[in-house]
Amino acid sequence: MDNGSSAAIAQSLRQWLASAAPGRQLPSTRALVAEHQASPVTVQRALRSLTAEGLVESRPGVGSFVRAQRPLRTTDHGWQTAALHAPATRAPEVSVALRSAPNDMIALHTGFPDRSLLPERLVRVALTRAARGDGAVSRPPVAGLPELQAWFAEQAGASAGDVVVLPGSQSGLGTIFRSVVGAGGPVVMESPTYWGAIRAAAQAGLRVVPIPSGPGGPDPDDLDRALEESGARLFYAQPTWANPTGAQWSRERADAIGDVVRRHGAFLVEDDWAHELGMTAEPMPLVTRDQDGHVLYLRSLSKSVSPSLRVAAIVARGPVRARILADQSAEALYVSGLLQTAALDVVTQPGWPTHLRSLRHRLRDRRDLLVAALAHHVPTAHLTAVPTGGLNLWLQLPDGTDVTMLARDCEAHGVLVAPGHEWFPAEPTGAFLRLSFAGPDPDSFDHGAEVIGEALARASG
Amino acid sequence: MDNGSSAAIAQSLRQWLASAAPGRQLPSTRALVAEHQASPVTVQRALRSLTAEGLVESRPGVGSFVRAQRPLRTTDHGWQTAALHAPATRAPEVSVALRSAPNDMIALHTGFPDRSLLPERLVRVALTRAARGDGAVSRPPVAGLPELQAWFAEQAGASAGDVVVLPGSQSGLGTIFRSVVGAGGPVVMESPTYWGAIRAAAQAGLRVVPIPSGPGGPDPDDLDRALEESGARLFYAQPTWANPTGAQWSRERADAIGDVVRRHGAFLVEDDWAHELGMTAEPMPLVTRDQDGHVLYLRSLSKSVSPSLRVAAIVARGPVRARILADQSAEALYVSGLLQTAALDVVTQPGWPTHLRSLRHRLRDRRDLLVAALAHHVPTAHLTAVPTGGLNLWLQLPDGTDVTMLARDCEAHGVLVAPGHEWFPAEPTGAFLRLSFAGPDPDSFDHGAEVIGEALARASG
Repeated sequence: MDNGSSAAIAQSLRQWLASAAPGRQLPSTRALVAEHQASPVTVQRALRSLTAEGLVESRPGVGSFVRAQRPLRTTDHGWQTAALHAPATRAPEVSVALRSAPNDMIALHTGFPDRSLLPERLVRVALTRAARGDGAVSRPPVAGLPELQAWFAEQAGASAGDVVVLPGSQSGLGTIFRSVVGAGGPVVMESPTYWGAIRAAAQAGLRVVPIPSGPGGPDPDDLDRALEESGARLFYAQPTWANPTGAQWSRERADAIGDVVRRHGAFLVEDDWAHELGMTAEPMPLVTRDQDGHVLYLRSLSKSVSPSLRVAAIVARGPVRARILADQSAEALYVSGLLQTAALDVVTQPGWPTHLRSLRHRLRDRRDLLVAALAHHVPTAHLTAVPTGGLNLWLQLPDGTDVTMLARDCEAHGVLVAPGHEWFPAEPTGAFLRLSFAGPDPDSFDHGAEVIGEALARASG
Repeated sequence: MDNGSSAAIAQSLRQWLASAAPGRQLPSTRALVAEHQASPVTVQRALRSLTAEGLVESRPGVGSFVRAQRPLRTTDHGWQTAALHAPATRAPEVSVALRSAPNDMIALHTGFPDRSLLPERLVRVALTRAARGDGAVSRPPVAGLPELQAWFAEQAGASAGDVVVLPGSQSGLGTIFRSVVGAGGPVVMESPTYWGAIRAAAQAGLRVVPIPSGPGGPDPDDLDRALEESGARLFYAQPTWANPTGAQWSRERADAIGDVVRRHGAFLVEDDWAHELGMTAEPMPLVTRDQDGHVLYLRSLSKSVSPSLRVAAIVARGPVRARILADQSAEALYVSGLLQTAALDVVTQPGWPTHLRSLRHRLRDRRDLLVAALAHHVPTAHLTAVPTGGLNLWLQLPDGTDVTMLARDCEAHGVLVAPGHEWFPAEPTGAFLRLSFAGPDPDSFDHGAEVIGEALARASG
């Protein structure tokens, strides 16, 4: 089945339809087969897709016809303003990191690894196998498939019964913020930190208490003061290759922070988003040394396995796990058994460690290429650190640079970059760009850096 | 690949492992192949699963060994009590309707249709096809795949741009309650109504304002008063084969309720959960007659296509859609492209309407069988109505029956039933059971009804 070709036929027909009179008959399947050199199945797939879009009407045994378009409506939705009130939190637009980019743009903004970095064969085989198994038509337990729970537990040195499987880690953030803190309550976060966590906290109505975080992670004294002053019982952090800074906490730093958290009777959300994305260092999850349930460990497979396998888990010891499970069951009911089966299949294949070894090298090569290109073309910018894991660089630009304008200028020249302010829970402390070395084709890095350098020159010129 | 057989091998090895000393070598793959008459691939799959569970350790080139078990720990998690505070809402346990049942129980409690009622072949073919396509390794737009948006829009007489695709309709409930109402705000609901909606509202911190609802739906005057007195701007309802009552609103009732909603400048959440589950009537979604964005239309494919295809959508016209999309993007980021592709594939196949026609008859036959069995064995109970669609009956028992005790008695005799109180936002107005005719084998209906009748006799005896 050639999906690309069916999409191309649909696209070509859409153009034809744009100027065709309602009621007019479309070329026959046979004619379309000949015109596009495609199989009848592919042509029918394109026609079905146009039917689903309401552009074409199919009369069985007769053919396909241009559908009469509904007249355009203009409706006054003004009444909704009173019903909706003002949003509790500033309704955020969709994050820059989630933007889909046209093929001809250099997508340095993206938060997701390129398809060439995914274990594509393992994923397709696992999905095909899962499509034949029980998972395709049955409903798994609310907390997850026992075998997948056991796998996540093993990763964290915990028991399968401590695990709640999630439809992606973003959903886990919402669940933790709602169920452990609740609207109006405080949460301490590093600054800068993952935009998705800032957004989930805002959506749950939490008050974010930021503490500064550098290349070695946050200062335990800052955390101590923040917990003391705010009364917060939750600290959200990414100890391993933090997004966006790439920071990894040393063993000593991790222990010191663990002590502060314990002393305050607080929870640490350890968002281990980049566990499989090490380049020149190893992950050392804090959860494996947690004795008494202070660490809520969040682990996702969407970035390293495939964005289509939206499977993650929280490992939580003690009564907090019941609180988390209750929220997840109210929010999601359960996670697709098919996706759980396929995800477990991928990470238990012999090909998985092989893939991870190769990924390690490819990420490192990409990182080094982008670092070199930036050093060459953007000499006035400063990398706070060369990360030892993760997917991106955190580039500081000269003070006073208007990064929003700069990003717009870059986009006009075919390069997408992410202005750093989305990663700050409060006002940014400097002018930053987050640049992905895992998204775009490495061959485009040099030109991408050049465009950034030129835009920066214009901005300061 | 025979999954059943690999699960059986794992189960047999688990029993062996329970009494085996740590460090002892497992039988070789070859020996297991011979013993279980299975392929080496199947045996290796069983071993991988035990490895993932931490029971077995594999030493490449040597064999598999019984893993040393961690000593059991008892940990004092008492500190979490102070950190968690009391829950904002009574933390609900997992609903009865979600309980997985052992194979030898008669599962009249379940909220999900039996596998034999699903379009299993269409689902497997669609998933296999999707495993080969782009959706397996790419990330779709936040609001959903355009073709799937178009399909949902077509169902509601709306535009593709009005649609937000969701990872299941339960997630949509949370999103609507959080983003349209917000913690502390009121929402009007039918009573009884879907337990998942009651739970999602509680989790979002909403105040539920119940109005009574009978076999014809709620009284528009009751709704008028409830909106007036509470100031609520949101009414959640299931106008088509409500869960649990089976009620379908007449055209006149729907118009009268629509008028009340409009007059109050309020939204109606139309949860069209049973759209494909009609037996002797047709669905008539209110959204198709909504002119100015008062209806938030919720439609899921998990019940009719497969529980593994967690795909649903909200159709919302006007600014409210931006509010909904912002919450979904903070909660879920996006919905698996693989599941979206496969779901669209199923519902655009010629086999889909054929399946729905056959489903219609099979549901009706099952319904009639269970109705007859109850009339015979539980003559003192009363069906408020014989539903024309949906998956269950709503059985009223004599006043004063302790349904919790009754359910426990039935369970002891091999029959699972759902006590009605989970479907009431407040105190139940009578003694009810919700009984699924779509879950268990119809051959068991007679015995199931007999057990209920005997338990009822004991309860009142």
